[in-house]
Amino acid sequence: MKFSSKLLEDAVEAVSRLPGIGKKSALRLILHLLADDSGKNDRIVNSLQNLKKGIKSCKNCHNYSDNEICDICLSPSRRKTTVCVVESIRDVMAIEETQQYSGVYHILGGVISPLDGIGPENLNIDSLCKRVEEEKIEELIMAIAPTIEGETTVFYISKKLENKDIDISMIARGVSFGGELAYADEYTLAQSILSRQPYKQS
Amino acid sequence: MKFSSKLLEDAVEAVSRLPGIGKKSALRLILHLLADDSGKNDRIVNSLQNLKKGIKSCKNCHNYSDNEICDICLSPSRRKTTVCVVESIRDVMAIEETQQYSGVYHILGGVISPLDGIGPENLNIDSLCKRVEEEKIEELIMAIAPTIEGETTVFYISKKLENKDIDISMIARGVSFGGELAYADEYTLAQSILSRQPYKQS
Repeated sequence: MKFSSKLLEDAVEAVSRLPGIGKKSALRLILHLLADDSGKNDRIVNSLQNLKKGIKSCKNCHNYSDNEICDICLSPSRRKTTVCVVESIRDVMAIEETQQYSGVYHILGGVISPLDGIGPENLNIDSLCKRVEEEKIEELIMAIAPTIEGETTVFYISKKLENKDIDISMIARGVSFGGELAYADEYTLAQSILSRQPYKQS
Repeated sequence: MKFSSKLLEDAVEAVSRLPGIGKKSALRLILHLLADDSGKNDRIVNSLQNLKKGIKSCKNCHNYSDNEICDICLSPSRRKTTVCVVESIRDVMAIEETQQYSGVYHILGGVISPLDGIGPENLNIDSLCKRVEEEKIEELIMAIAPTIEGETTVFYISKKLENKDIDISMIARGVSFGGELAYADEYTLAQSILSRQPYKQS
């Protein structure tokens, strides 16, 4: 790409390093920003700056937070005895969206993936064990995606905690709501049959 | 979406106003930025800030430039008698990419589109007429996408300049109808410039 401006080239280069954004998209976004005089650009730049400066990781669950301890951990209405273990903050947001969960969380920050150089020491597993040690946690719900890496991570954590008096459960796996059986992969379908539930007339 | 951090929410809100970026994409991008400690985030924010502060519009052709007059207008190797009239800077970049054009440019900043409230007065048409008046321009190549609005704009400009001793040509319709110049492949674009046709009012 030939740029008429070095400043423009720098900005396109920086933005195009974001995942899923190529040079053409980056250029489109930046030209949009430049063409706009309503202060939208300033708002984006400012909010990103404030974010990087101000955001904290909750000391308890590693969720992003504006304070030392996040709102979920602080909330008196959340059951502190149930901890949902997830890979990332996006999973927390997805589960919160369902409004069906009233426990707290623990964010691992990833899953064990030797190929990507991510071992247990790179994840928030030690702090999870410490929480199990220090808090009165009764149940860990493993809301980890059922991939090879996810399974490995769950296995590793369950091994580490096998001497503790604590229930470890996995989120149910099965055919997604509205999904067609014919399009489900074999593994999912097998799991959904193996972990079938008694039918109740509602 | 439920955010654990107001700062995060503000940033997602700001970024999701960009074209083609929804809230989920914005969240993904921002979490990527936050997860990265290599200073990539700082680079993006800094480059956007520098861009907004430093970028100029070339006084001659309205191309983005780091200086008052852009490199293309200043270059001694560009033929100043041929001016390629385009809608946006992205078109300039696309044409430059073909390496088939050695004249200079004039960027209109859009096309006449009454439905969007864009009239001739919102475009760089007066400055084009002034250039025709003051510079020794022999030919205007209209490299405007062949849409209704594009055709209207070309017609308007040709009407304004009909008493001038100047050739007005259109890029050949190699560009598919309704297509955007910036997305045309280099060969098509190069061909459409080489086989430009004299403009006739129909």
